[in-house]
Amino acid sequence: MAGRCPMSSRRGFLAALGSAAAAAGAGPQVRAAIPDNSAKAERGITPPSQGEGHGRALIEPFAGDHQGGIATALQSHTYMLAFDLTTKSVEDVVRLMKLWTLAAARMTAGETAAPLDTDRSAPAADSGDALGLAPARLTVTFGFGPGLFMSAEQDRYGLAAYRPEALVDLPPFTGDQLQEARTGGDLSVQACADDPQVAFHAARQLARLAQGIAQIRWAQTGFAANFAAEETPRNLMGFKDGTQNPIARKPLEKTAETGVRSNPGSLEDVVWVAEEGPDWMQGGSYMVVRRIRIALEHWDATPVDFQEETIGRHKDSGAPIGGTSEFDPLDLDATDADGNPLIAEHAHVRMAAAASNDGAEMLRRSYSYNDGVSFTAERWPPWRQGMMYDAGLLFMCYQRDPRTSFIKIFGPMSQFDMLNQYATHVGGGLFACPGGVRPGEFIGQKLFEAALGTTAVAAVEAKPLAPHAAGDKTRY
Amino acid sequence: MAGRCPMSSRRGFLAALGSAAAAAGAGPQVRAAIPDNSAKAERGITPPSQGEGHGRALIEPFAGDHQGGIATALQSHTYMLAFDLTTKSVEDVVRLMKLWTLAAARMTAGETAAPLDTDRSAPAADSGDALGLAPARLTVTFGFGPGLFMSAEQDRYGLAAYRPEALVDLPPFTGDQLQEARTGGDLSVQACADDPQVAFHAARQLARLAQGIAQIRWAQTGFAANFAAEETPRNLMGFKDGTQNPIARKPLEKTAETGVRSNPGSLEDVVWVAEEGPDWMQGGSYMVVRRIRIALEHWDATPVDFQEETIGRHKDSGAPIGGTSEFDPLDLDATDADGNPLIAEHAHVRMAAAASNDGAEMLRRSYSYNDGVSFTAERWPPWRQGMMYDAGLLFMCYQRDPRTSFIKIFGPMSQFDMLNQYATHVGGGLFACPGGVRPGEFIGQKLFEAALGTTAVAAVEAKPLAPHAAGDKTRY
Repeated sequence: MAGRCPMSSRRGFLAALGSAAAAAGAGPQVRAAIPDNSAKAERGITPPSQGEGHGRALIEPFAGDHQGGIATALQSHTYMLAFDLTTKSVEDVVRLMKLWTLAAARMTAGETAAPLDTDRSAPAADSGDALGLAPARLTVTFGFGPGLFMSAEQDRYGLAAYRPEALVDLPPFTGDQLQEARTGGDLSVQACADDPQVAFHAARQLARLAQGIAQIRWAQTGFAANFAAEETPRNLMGFKDGTQNPIARKPLEKTAETGVRSNPGSLEDVVWVAEEGPDWMQGGSYMVVRRIRIALEHWDATPVDFQEETIGRHKDSGAPIGGTSEFDPLDLDATDADGNPLIAEHAHVRMAAAASNDGAEMLRRSYSYNDGVSFTAERWPPWRQGMMYDAGLLFMCYQRDPRTSFIKIFGPMSQFDMLNQYATHVGGGLFACPGGVRPGEFIGQKLFEAALGTTAVAAVEAKPLAPHAAGDKTRY
Repeated sequence: MAGRCPMSSRRGFLAALGSAAAAAGAGPQVRAAIPDNSAKAERGITPPSQGEGHGRALIEPFAGDHQGGIATALQSHTYMLAFDLTTKSVEDVVRLMKLWTLAAARMTAGETAAPLDTDRSAPAADSGDALGLAPARLTVTFGFGPGLFMSAEQDRYGLAAYRPEALVDLPPFTGDQLQEARTGGDLSVQACADDPQVAFHAARQLARLAQGIAQIRWAQTGFAANFAAEETPRNLMGFKDGTQNPIARKPLEKTAETGVRSNPGSLEDVVWVAEEGPDWMQGGSYMVVRRIRIALEHWDATPVDFQEETIGRHKDSGAPIGGTSEFDPLDLDATDADGNPLIAEHAHVRMAAAASNDGAEMLRRSYSYNDGVSFTAERWPPWRQGMMYDAGLLFMCYQRDPRTSFIKIFGPMSQFDMLNQYATHVGGGLFACPGGVRPGEFIGQKLFEAALGTTAVAAVEAKPLAPHAAGDKTRY
């Protein structure tokens, strides 16, 4: 029988994790592998890492009331996957969620997706490209799309009755140019880390585990620039982006205890599903993703004053039009000497503001994306055709109910926001991200237990279907 | 008349650069804006930054005997652009190289592409997305493709007689699947930085300056994982990559004086064009770029022992097959007890080794790339069709003469390298990267002076053609 290979830990993090995780790294006691950091996770937000060597040595908790990657301080890179389920068996879906939970917990802690052994005549249980890399604050966030519950009007898995009302089919919005190959999906997996190779490694191992059960529908990389933790980052349009985010960086105040004060009430009010349930969504959140291509060539050719009118803020300071400081109050009633509004009627900040939307809010946690160039016909004079940047915003937001947050806010914006002449929504989706897990649980467990019963769910073995998938049963 | 805007410096680096650069930041004395760090550049290689907070605060020299980005320690991100020249005027090409040199020198030092002013009724001279970001060790490397000298059998610019013999048209290689939209180009611009937004920002400003002269042909992002500076990084295949690189990380030995010992002789022997000239290429290098898509799904399903046979090294240690340590000598004659070679006849390391190629070498300076997934027909059983990773290697190498380096080495490899069943070359090009500049010079100056005469070259004004390009003449 093959022994254990020393490759299976990365930079000796097993030692740092203590005996439970170390035991898991040395054998098949999979559930103990989930580090229990729920107390830390409950704080709701973790300090940004940029001031500390880009967070290379930090581990984000996997277990807790909430999944990681939602209220977690933004990492520098993301790799997002949407999957189509191909299996006909709900037990396979359970199997996949068990496998994914286990592997994600291990990788978050800096380990390989599954223990490696020294049998070299079989494919490795981990592709190995993260060996030697730090955990890099990896988080993995799982989501359920509408297709898990109802697909082509079929109740494939007996889950239709458990579909939350809030998990709607996103309505069409004005200006949508959604590409089918970049839109939707039955399941979502988002890996975020302070290292692009760590993020991709995690998503890739999870995709291997899905063989025979689900296949990749679309993928998207994203990045965040290395702005100092105390600064609101500038996006690819050169404007500070996130000043009004309910859990933006600026409003956080450091305390002696945690280093960071979360904005009391905001996460609970805006992001985390509570008693409105269902059970499996409590502590979870609904994620809207939109791949928004930005016509950077057009934007760069736009006079600064019109850029500022479009956004509703000054470019250099980030202050509201007419203000001097980024955190000047957003006074939507302010007028100039002629009585005209200082912030234009359809300026982006006005339309997005809670005050313009009956108080509706959402937590934005977006990345920029950059996929080079592609052949495009310009939507602006002189309507040149040629290679244009395929870059922009991988917009992501989280909320308790998309009907009263994203859909409510973006509906009017899709019609009137001045920014629309530069931004095109080309893909995305809506996913229900279940609440977090305690050690021994798997993501979405309560949903499947409600539908199938506790015993049937417990009976599903966490073994991959494909013979060469990571964690193949012949390898344990 | 509009005044100068405080936005034009990033994080106050002007102060750190001293009076010459500061003066340039405050006015149009463009040539003085090139920081003269030639002494530092002559060392040939700079220390890796990963141990120092990811190099966020470091500035790479722009001026020197060589362009940056060739012997520079690998940054974490790259953005590569290839351009087609659209102008009919060689003076426009001179204009562009002057504009590019100036803007690149400024941005390398952490400044905007051109000074900003406070006139907000015109497009800004810089898109602003790098304001607040550190220089992040930005380098910009320029190259001339064959098309600058001869395009569709036309001597468009009177430069045909100056084409170096070494700047050949790359021959077709076995297995090439080059896509026209990812291949070739008259000019190349590669921005590398320890921040993806800084790299893209630089390339984007340079593309703006090219309006009316050249247009983007293809673009490619790339990244490097955060491996510790003293470790050979693992690529997406999970193997250590670069052990045998003539200027690999491992062979560098630290000295008290510079922190790093360059491998004496190697850069001069392998990379930098010397008296074989022409003049404008002395201190320059020929860059071969190949976008190599790797069938990661196929690789992950391959037994480890076959992966190792394919590469010719052990996966965990990086040691040659049969060895125990990464830096064990690569003994191509070693055999097992049955007399079979330990390193397979067509293993990747054997075919790439200098000993297998009459001593031929090149400096590899590759990035990984990750463009998500695209619809692909598998080249391996069971010939599945579906969404496959569009990820792999943005291979880049530098040499004094591609005929005796890349072409000589890769010719046989393209036929027999065992790795070929996993790797597909889908794009790239060959570019002559001129030698470095001293303050007041521009990249390629000696080429244009030889062809047009010193007076004619000096008479070309460094003003953009397009009214809304960065550095528009109305803005100075």
